[in-house]
Amino acid sequence: MTEASAGRPAAVGLDVGGTKVLGVVIDATGRMLAEERRPTPRDADGIIDALDETAAVLTGAVGRSDAPVPLGVGMPGLISTAGVLVSSPNLADVVDLDIAGRLGPRLGGAFRPQVVVANDATCAVLAEWSIGAARGVDDVVMVTLGTSIGGGVIAGGRVVTGAHGFTGEFGHMVVEANGLPCPCGRSGCWERYASGSGLANLARVAAIGGRLRRVVALAGGDAQAVRGEHVHQAAIERDEGALAVIDQFARWVALGLANLTNAFDPAAFVLGGGLADGADLYLGPIERWYHELLYAPDRRPHPALSFAQLGEHAGAIGAGLLALSRAD
Amino acid sequence: MTEASAGRPAAVGLDVGGTKVLGVVIDATGRMLAEERRPTPRDADGIIDALDETAAVLTGAVGRSDAPVPLGVGMPGLISTAGVLVSSPNLADVVDLDIAGRLGPRLGGAFRPQVVVANDATCAVLAEWSIGAARGVDDVVMVTLGTSIGGGVIAGGRVVTGAHGFTGEFGHMVVEANGLPCPCGRSGCWERYASGSGLANLARVAAIGGRLRRVVALAGGDAQAVRGEHVHQAAIERDEGALAVIDQFARWVALGLANLTNAFDPAAFVLGGGLADGADLYLGPIERWYHELLYAPDRRPHPALSFAQLGEHAGAIGAGLLALSRAD
Repeated sequence: MTEASAGRPAAVGLDVGGTKVLGVVIDATGRMLAEERRPTPRDADGIIDALDETAAVLTGAVGRSDAPVPLGVGMPGLISTAGVLVSSPNLADVVDLDIAGRLGPRLGGAFRPQVVVANDATCAVLAEWSIGAARGVDDVVMVTLGTSIGGGVIAGGRVVTGAHGFTGEFGHMVVEANGLPCPCGRSGCWERYASGSGLANLARVAAIGGRLRRVVALAGGDAQAVRGEHVHQAAIERDEGALAVIDQFARWVALGLANLTNAFDPAAFVLGGGLADGADLYLGPIERWYHELLYAPDRRPHPALSFAQLGEHAGAIGAGLLALSRAD
Repeated sequence: MTEASAGRPAAVGLDVGGTKVLGVVIDATGRMLAEERRPTPRDADGIIDALDETAAVLTGAVGRSDAPVPLGVGMPGLISTAGVLVSSPNLADVVDLDIAGRLGPRLGGAFRPQVVVANDATCAVLAEWSIGAARGVDDVVMVTLGTSIGGGVIAGGRVVTGAHGFTGEFGHMVVEANGLPCPCGRSGCWERYASGSGLANLARVAAIGGRLRRVVALAGGDAQAVRGEHVHQAAIERDEGALAVIDQFARWVALGLANLTNAFDPAAFVLGGGLADGADLYLGPIERWYHELLYAPDRRPHPALSFAQLGEHAGAIGAGLLALSRAD
C-alpha cells in the first residue's frame, strides 16, 4: 500500500447477518469509505438479489477506483472454499447456495466477477487483526458471541480456513458431553451455554428458581420472557442475582476459551458479536475464570483478552480485505 | 532435495518418551539411516546427559555428512518456541529446563549448536505429513492416544506451533464440564476418557459392575487391576463385554475428533500413540461415532481417519525434519 492508495476505493465487502446485509467500500488499509444496508431476505434468490443490489448502490463510491475492485461476502455457517454456502444457522431453508457462481456474473463492471465468499467470523478476525483489536499479533482467535457462536483464526500471520473452509465452528465444540440438547442434533455444544441464548437460558433457570427478582421485573414479570438484555440491565444496576448469572455465564465462556487455548495457543483472543456490547460487565469475570480453567496457568504467558473494536462492520470490512488479499 | 542427497545424513532427531530416549539419523527425505535408544532419566541433568550421549553415539553415522547437521528434540508437554521445557506430564519434577541452551554447547562438531526443541506430537505430525499417513495433505490434525493425549497440527501446508509453542494440547480440552477430575486440576479433560488411562478407567468401571468377566480373568481376577491391554486382548477374542467398552471408548475419541474438526477443519486425522497398536479394533467404532457426532455430517466432506504409519519413530524423525526445516 502506498500513501496514494489510502482513501481510494480498493474493495467492497458484504456481510449477510441475521437481520441485515451490510456492505462497505474500503480502501487498501481497510478504512471504510462508504456503507449501505438492507434487511436480510430469508430465501436464496432474495439473498443473491440483496447482495447484488447492495453492491450496485455502492458502485458510486467505487467508481473513483482505477480498475474493477474485488468483492467479498461474509456469511455465518459452513462456506466452502469454492464460495458455496453449504448450510447456515440463520437460514435453515438455504443449502448449497453457490453465492460466488450466482453473484459474480450479475455484478456490474465496477467489480471483478471473481467473488470471494467466506465465513463471517473468518472475515471478522481478518478485519480485527488488520485494523482492530489484534493488530500486529500473529496468532489470534476470534470468538463471536451472539445468538450462536462463531469463530475465526489467524495462525502464524495467516488466515486459517481449513481444508474445506470450515475452520472455527467453535459453537459446536462439545463441552458437556451429556449436556443441553442443541438444534444441531448433539448435546452439550458450547453455544448452548456461552452464547446470547446460553446467557438467557442460564437466567431463565435462575429466574424460575426465584433468584432473579429484578431481572424478572425488567422482563415484565414473566420468568420465561427473560432475555440477555434484562440480565445486562440489572447487572448495570449491580443487582446481585444478575451478577451471579453473568459470573456463571463467564465461566462457560472461559471454559471454551481455555479449550481453544489448548488447541491454538493464540497470543490474543478477540471477543465479538452482540455480547461485545456488554464488554465492561463480562471481561473481568471471564478473565478470572480463564485463569482458573487454563491448563498450567502459572507456567505460561496468557493471551490478551479483548473485545472487538470494529463492531458491526468487522465482517464486511474483513470480507473486503479477504477479497483484496486474494486479488493480489 | 536432489537425488544425490538421498541416503546422506541430513539431520538427527531425538525423542524423549516416557520410558526411552530414541534418536535417529535421517536423510533429507526423512528416511532413517541409524537409530539409538536408552532409558529416559527422571531428572533434568539426566535428560540433558542422555540427549548428549545419544547424539554422540549417532556421530558415527552423521560423520558421512559434508557439514555439521541440525539436531532436533521432541518432548511431551509445553515446550516454548525458545526450546525451553516449561512443564511435562512425564517428568513432574522438571520445569523450565532450557534444553536448547544446555544441550547446544555440549554437542560435538558433527552437529550444529542451534538445537531445535518442540512438542513431540508436533514433531510426529510433521513426520506423518512428510513421509507417513498424511503425505500430500495440507490440513492435518494428529492426535496421539497414549497414557495421555497429545496433538500436532498442519494448517495450509505449514506446521502450526502457536504463539508460544503450545498448540495441540488436546488432552486438556474439556469435554465434560462436570466430569472426572484430571491431575491438571480441572475436570472433564478429554484425556480422562479417550486416552489409554481413559480406556482402562471405562473398563474398571464396567468390571466392578460385573460386566467384564473375561477381561477381569485376563487381569488375574482383580477388577481393579484391569488395564487397556486386557480389554484389547479380550476384544480380539470377540468378547462382548470388551467390545462394548471399546465402543464406549470410541465414542469419547470421536467426540473429541468432532470438536477438533469444528476447530481446524482438517482433511485428515492421524491417530498415533500406544493405542495405534489396536487400530484394527478401534477404527471402525471411532468412524461410526464420528459420523454420529460431527456437526452437519451429511453436508460436508469427512476428513480421512487413519492410524500413524511411523510407529515409535514418528517423534524422532519429525524432530529431525523440524530441525532441518529451520536450518534452511
